[in-house]
Amino acid sequence: MKKMINHPEAVVEEMLEGVVKAHPQYVRKLEGFNVLVRANGPVNGKVALVSGGGSGHEPSHGGFVGRGMLDGAVAGAVFTSPTPDQVFEAVKAVDGGAGVLLVIKNYTGDIMNFEMAAEMADMENIKVASVVVNDDVAVENSTWTTGRRGIAGTVFIHKIAGAAAEKGMNLDEVKRVAEKTIANVRSMGMSLTPCTVPAAGKPSFELAENEMEVGLGIHGEPGTHRDVIKTADEITAHLVEKILEDMDYSQSEVAVLMNGLGGTPLMELYIMNRKVSSILEERGIKVHKTFVGNFMTSLEMAGASVSILKLDEELKELLDATADTPAFTQL
Amino acid sequence: MKKMINHPEAVVEEMLEGVVKAHPQYVRKLEGFNVLVRANGPVNGKVALVSGGGSGHEPSHGGFVGRGMLDGAVAGAVFTSPTPDQVFEAVKAVDGGAGVLLVIKNYTGDIMNFEMAAEMADMENIKVASVVVNDDVAVENSTWTTGRRGIAGTVFIHKIAGAAAEKGMNLDEVKRVAEKTIANVRSMGMSLTPCTVPAAGKPSFELAENEMEVGLGIHGEPGTHRDVIKTADEITAHLVEKILEDMDYSQSEVAVLMNGLGGTPLMELYIMNRKVSSILEERGIKVHKTFVGNFMTSLEMAGASVSILKLDEELKELLDATADTPAFTQL
Repeated sequence: MKKMINHPEAVVEEMLEGVVKAHPQYVRKLEGFNVLVRANGPVNGKVALVSGGGSGHEPSHGGFVGRGMLDGAVAGAVFTSPTPDQVFEAVKAVDGGAGVLLVIKNYTGDIMNFEMAAEMADMENIKVASVVVNDDVAVENSTWTTGRRGIAGTVFIHKIAGAAAEKGMNLDEVKRVAEKTIANVRSMGMSLTPCTVPAAGKPSFELAENEMEVGLGIHGEPGTHRDVIKTADEITAHLVEKILEDMDYSQSEVAVLMNGLGGTPLMELYIMNRKVSSILEERGIKVHKTFVGNFMTSLEMAGASVSILKLDEELKELLDATADTPAFTQL
Repeated sequence: MKKMINHPEAVVEEMLEGVVKAHPQYVRKLEGFNVLVRANGPVNGKVALVSGGGSGHEPSHGGFVGRGMLDGAVAGAVFTSPTPDQVFEAVKAVDGGAGVLLVIKNYTGDIMNFEMAAEMADMENIKVASVVVNDDVAVENSTWTTGRRGIAGTVFIHKIAGAAAEKGMNLDEVKRVAEKTIANVRSMGMSLTPCTVPAAGKPSFELAENEMEVGLGIHGEPGTHRDVIKTADEITAHLVEKILEDMDYSQSEVAVLMNGLGGTPLMELYIMNRKVSSILEERGIKVHKTFVGNFMTSLEMAGASVSILKLDEELKELLDATADTPAFTQL
């Protein structure tokens, strides 16, 4: 295992310390919990957003804590759901009196623990609502999921529901906007290499030198199939086709997220984005905005996912709103 | 070679097409040249900044073309200097009448070709000045360098000289500010893995499973030594010590760039940054601002570099100024 770490068991805590040292203007850590919240929060009268999940997906989710996106992010152990008490602490810390929306990726453990935290908050009279992101079109059920998995499309929910909250919408409205975003986004990924969870010390699966895994999940869960590595254009076309088959995007305006899984050079993401653009252009689908980079990663995995979000005027305005967080800033 | 590409010889051109498709609001490509310039440029009366070099260091340099940073970026073949005519085209395209500053990383090929472009511009009566970045404290001479290499610290020059130009400083002043930034920044890196230039098809060097290369360059040039992989804290301490030995930072305020080489998870960069912060704190050196992420990469290399910039009031103000580019936005 080649990693720049100190001790496999300490990676999450040391990472969070490093985040706070790097970005004190944006975030602080709750004493005794692996929770990052806005440095200057809670924001009075604003609906607060909390997300999180297992670590290893950086910058998700702590990197998106800041104005116009999240209020709090809960970091579980690597690829492991955070416990309910951690989520509950986040909820208490960010509530500004207008309630808290939990943005949960669809994994059985995450849902159970976030929902339990919601019940704990309810008992303390904090209004909590939740939404579950299930954007991955690859497989219907997986190792850790009933139904579709939540992957990189989640970042669109952070951005858009975050902007809705910042704009002063109430909890019901922010939830409505988040659900519309979830309904409108589809993703699919692939990978050239596995990744190694520090505490495990060895890769979670193996791929031959000429092999790729198509449709795998962000924890290395199996995808739809293995295949010989194809060209970037062929790989990209396959991912985009699966997305376009799943929802009617015709005549739409969309936002694209060309996401790297952590170990893929930006060069390759842009080469893939070239093909995404050209397919969408051919189909008469207009790209309003494109994001390229590492947004939802799987440690050092080499691979990528494509997310395509169908926009309406409301989503477009919220997507374009100002945001200022450690990992995403938009004027 | 596991890469998402179409053809090894086409990577740079296809990448640039992907960049333009992703970020038309920021950049356009000069027809027939591997040059990106601001979408809405040239800016009349403003000093323009051009940088560039071999490709494979993305987001450097095209990702930094935009308001408050560069006006143009020239992309050579992977790890290969761009030719003089490409640089000259960039200069002509961005000149807004106030002259052009070339920001060159210290590699023999880059210097030769950028200087030749400067002479070509001179013959067309475009005012051109140039600065050479040599921030790498690891080795005094290298495979492709006389003197110290230019590495990730270069991004500070883009940011600060870019802000100076945006503020309306003239060419002499922008050059003065760039030279002060160069004089004040030091960097050093290390790597856990090599990377593969697409056209070569195999890694440029080999490292054993328990080995790291300390002080290597961003093209995989040899560093100071190979060593058994140490803990993140030990590795980071070594890099920071070499930097602090090289310049007197005592009583200073600094900016830190904790840079990933492309294949390193953000988690590890933050774990390293935790140690950078604590060493600087112990020494009484105040960190004004920290940037963590992939700024100057070496394709998919796993590794990192630390850059530390000594600030004065002028540099601080320019560092903090607004910037808006594909890879770096600051409110």
